[in-house]
Amino acid sequence: MEKFMIIGERIHCISPTIRKAIEERNTAPIFKRAKEQLEAGADYLDLNIGPATKNGEEIMQWGVQALQSEFDNVPLALDTTNKKAIEAGLKVYNREKGKPIINSADAGERIVNIDLAAEYDAMCIALCAKEGIPKDNDERIAYCTEMLEKAMGLGMEPTDLLFDPLIVVVKGMQDKQKEVLEAIRQISEMELKTCCGLSNVSNGAPKEIRPIIDATFAAMAIQSGLTSAIVNPCDQRLKETIKTCDVVNGAVLYADSYLEL
Amino acid sequence: MEKFMIIGERIHCISPTIRKAIEERNTAPIFKRAKEQLEAGADYLDLNIGPATKNGEEIMQWGVQALQSEFDNVPLALDTTNKKAIEAGLKVYNREKGKPIINSADAGERIVNIDLAAEYDAMCIALCAKEGIPKDNDERIAYCTEMLEKAMGLGMEPTDLLFDPLIVVVKGMQDKQKEVLEAIRQISEMELKTCCGLSNVSNGAPKEIRPIIDATFAAMAIQSGLTSAIVNPCDQRLKETIKTCDVVNGAVLYADSYLEL
Repeated sequence: MEKFMIIGERIHCISPTIRKAIEERNTAPIFKRAKEQLEAGADYLDLNIGPATKNGEEIMQWGVQALQSEFDNVPLALDTTNKKAIEAGLKVYNREKGKPIINSADAGERIVNIDLAAEYDAMCIALCAKEGIPKDNDERIAYCTEMLEKAMGLGMEPTDLLFDPLIVVVKGMQDKQKEVLEAIRQISEMELKTCCGLSNVSNGAPKEIRPIIDATFAAMAIQSGLTSAIVNPCDQRLKETIKTCDVVNGAVLYADSYLEL
Repeated sequence: MEKFMIIGERIHCISPTIRKAIEERNTAPIFKRAKEQLEAGADYLDLNIGPATKNGEEIMQWGVQALQSEFDNVPLALDTTNKKAIEAGLKVYNREKGKPIINSADAGERIVNIDLAAEYDAMCIALCAKEGIPKDNDERIAYCTEMLEKAMGLGMEPTDLLFDPLIVVVKGMQDKQKEVLEAIRQISEMELKTCCGLSNVSNGAPKEIRPIIDATFAAMAIQSGLTSAIVNPCDQRLKETIKTCDVVNGAVLYADSYLEL
């Protein structure tokens, strides 16, 4: 079994620090978060530049080149709704350490990002959604199949799509949690890969219990077949949990020091 | 979905304190651990009196009556290899708060404990084993079926057997972990109940990481369908994890304070 893939979420323009750094093309705050996440075990870094309607292409190229030159061609997820910005990023991306990930396509208007993934031999997060949250797993699986067929028609490897079932918040949509985990199981039984924005599950919960919810849900989701997630890799409890799941699943050899490795 | 059932493991004659308390028929140390476990959320208390070849019947009756009179007829798991001692305990057990659990039967010589469970309308932990650890899941399921048929032939409800797949230690039997989780899934898909000695998974691992392994494995096992376990309910991380699984599974309503409830 493969090791769980951790995509670090902390370079995100929702953070005022990161937004400002992007505006000023100041790499220091971005490098700081990149370093912290890589040291904590991130396999990929997500680079979220927001909608980036103005200068999106230039910003994405700047970010990709800055991060990859500072951190030995660290593999990246290019995260924006601006397709042209993603394409610009793909053009300068160095794939020595791993294919780029496009974040993200869906079964609606953003399905065009699958074309982009096929054209540039990229991976692509594929949200099992068209408009908003899917109402049930029939809908999730229908969208999953739709995107899979599209990708395969374009010659992509099925495992280059990372299907995201859309994690819903436990505080407010508690009755949907089992369904989301079941969607992960169904998709993983098709031998497809999965991804999700994990901390969505604990949105709105008290700050001190969010790591408990996130870590527990992560173990449940990994047991259901989840193969990757966009997370804060610096969250100690979550990090320990993911490492332990890797050990239980035999993806990493047990050693008394496995949490430090 | 039903709430996960926690059977507190801390009244166990492997502990020198408890062994001495039993020898001296001194209830104080036993009550102390009972109280701690009940306050931490134990649903049942396991009363392990060891092999109890001498005075087993009298000891079990003493323990059952002492605990039930002090703690409002707390439901108990009667734990010894001495069948006569279990039967003696069943005779004085008050079932007002829940059926007694016999700990345990197996598919070998101890299958006679299923007769006892049927006779006394008790639940019974049913180890999916005959001699030692089963070599694979075919063996586990064969033993499970054997015990199920026996119990049903005696008129028992299938859900009064708590099937224990036998948890194996990650340090040394790492390659068997996925198989054990898969056994839980298979048994739970038959709509049967399950139980296990959870902390076996972390046996021999450094003391400070055992709670991390136990909690992570618990979430994975619960996601596979595990319905109960014999655990230390005072382990904070494990307790938080089990409560969170109950919330994710919709067995307990979410509230910001759910960890305190």
